[in-house]
Amino acid sequence: MKNKFYKYLQLLQDNFTNEFEKIDAKAKFNEDIWIRPEGGGGKTRIIENGGVIEKGGVNISSVHGPLPESMQEYFKVENVDFYACGLSLVIHPNNPMAPTVHANWRYFEMYDKNGKIIDQWFGGGLDLTPYYFFKEDAEHFHKTCKDVCDQFNTEYYNKFKQECDSYFFNKHRNEARGVGGLFFDYLKEDKNNTLEDHYKFIISVSKSFLTAYVPILKKRMNLIYTDEQKNWQEMRRGRYVEFNLVHDKGTIFGLRTNGRIESILMSLPPKVQWKYNFKPKKGSAEEKLLKILKSPRNWI
Amino acid sequence: MKNKFYKYLQLLQDNFTNEFEKIDAKAKFNEDIWIRPEGGGGKTRIIENGGVIEKGGVNISSVHGPLPESMQEYFKVENVDFYACGLSLVIHPNNPMAPTVHANWRYFEMYDKNGKIIDQWFGGGLDLTPYYFFKEDAEHFHKTCKDVCDQFNTEYYNKFKQECDSYFFNKHRNEARGVGGLFFDYLKEDKNNTLEDHYKFIISVSKSFLTAYVPILKKRMNLIYTDEQKNWQEMRRGRYVEFNLVHDKGTIFGLRTNGRIESILMSLPPKVQWKYNFKPKKGSAEEKLLKILKSPRNWI
Repeated sequence: MKNKFYKYLQLLQDNFTNEFEKIDAKAKFNEDIWIRPEGGGGKTRIIENGGVIEKGGVNISSVHGPLPESMQEYFKVENVDFYACGLSLVIHPNNPMAPTVHANWRYFEMYDKNGKIIDQWFGGGLDLTPYYFFKEDAEHFHKTCKDVCDQFNTEYYNKFKQECDSYFFNKHRNEARGVGGLFFDYLKEDKNNTLEDHYKFIISVSKSFLTAYVPILKKRMNLIYTDEQKNWQEMRRGRYVEFNLVHDKGTIFGLRTNGRIESILMSLPPKVQWKYNFKPKKGSAEEKLLKILKSPRNWI
Repeated sequence: MKNKFYKYLQLLQDNFTNEFEKIDAKAKFNEDIWIRPEGGGGKTRIIENGGVIEKGGVNISSVHGPLPESMQEYFKVENVDFYACGLSLVIHPNNPMAPTVHANWRYFEMYDKNGKIIDQWFGGGLDLTPYYFFKEDAEHFHKTCKDVCDQFNTEYYNKFKQECDSYFFNKHRNEARGVGGLFFDYLKEDKNNTLEDHYKFIISVSKSFLTAYVPILKKRMNLIYTDEQKNWQEMRRGRYVEFNLVHDKGTIFGLRTNGRIESILMSLPPKVQWKYNFKPKKGSAEEKLLKILKSPRNWI
């Protein structure tokens, strides 16, 4: 399974970077191949200062070895080895009307001392972070998520949509990071699903990613905007940083497993502002966004 | 003790904000008085977009009530009340040649159910974060720290300087936040010192703050700089954010005790950049700074 999935992620990375280079039309992704001293490595592809994309990354990695101590505590296991592979993607467009998107699909295995698999699961998701709110964008993104979920299990969309809302939440601000999408973890073999079923599901979700995001990006990337709107985007990107550094488990996992720092922190936006206690004007588009982020809602 | 110390902090806040307003000569501090629902409150004073100071805060707070659960776990106590007061200060100057400074002085009490004090201590320190390295600045800052320490105990400076170096360290980058200063915590009554001795020490340290920082600020605040140097400052401020959100106990304490978010996060710099894997040129001033941050050294 791990070889099959990582092969697929390599193709997916090529597919995504090709597609975003076509859209950007100015910048290209730069690739860094890195090796993890304890086992494995990855391919980091970063695009910066593009025509459309201010900063973006489409990274894959495949790492293995003894499970670091802090992660053993987290998973409440002892003396195990692990394998993890995944694709992580963040796109921060120039245009404040175009939302940031994040996606991640991953597979995890744990082994006992004899190398026998003792646990294995898939996880991942995709979510959208707008700086200005367009209802039709949130609806399109969620509709695409629902369509792919419904092919597998009619309960998936509601479940994974809610998990996304509760995961991507800046508790200390009492505010969602964005308008959500899907988030799922620990998809394991059980009486209803084989691991292969989960594999097929995650493949389908990842294949629907461009359908979910690209039409939104194309619709917003050439809209006119003001300096004030750009400032607002940079302030909101501060919240993105707060989430990733304070709450995000993927970032924490990466920092704890001696992951490659620059690959982990590629998710951080290119330019960020923190103004003290900034409050948007009553009735403004900025205030409207904040209201929407205060309580996750249904988009379908 | 708590009333005496908080009264002093109120005077200190006035003194500092007056002094920084004089230096800035353009912007003034805005004051927000806030109340903590569970008990206590504070006075937050923020200056932004000044002639000299891009963003700064000089905040005091005095909070009390039942010790929040996560903090009970941290301190390994049960069913206790607490009181905490402190002054926190961060100054981010416009000029990349002028270092950021941070200082904090605090007092903490814990009570049993009958309101009897079961523990009490002082903590605090001051530290300097340059974006361009001037040896004489680091030396002046540390000399001032040493002079005040030596009045109390000739072992203090080395001890608290080392504690500062190990505390303000971005482990995930294997790099110090800056050139350090002093950091001390849990200064409790013991066979060598009364609480009053510690009080006098912390008062003296706080009184030496302006002597430690202001001459450096005045020397650097009008130097000429380029856009590239400003960009470097903003990238380095990314490291400041990483430290405060990933490692800083003060921030974590604030978030866990339902502190006022905008007052806690006033320490975050006004403008920040994250460029992927930026490496300064060999032999440049930027590279020199990184070398110095790789391994804390003695400045005296």
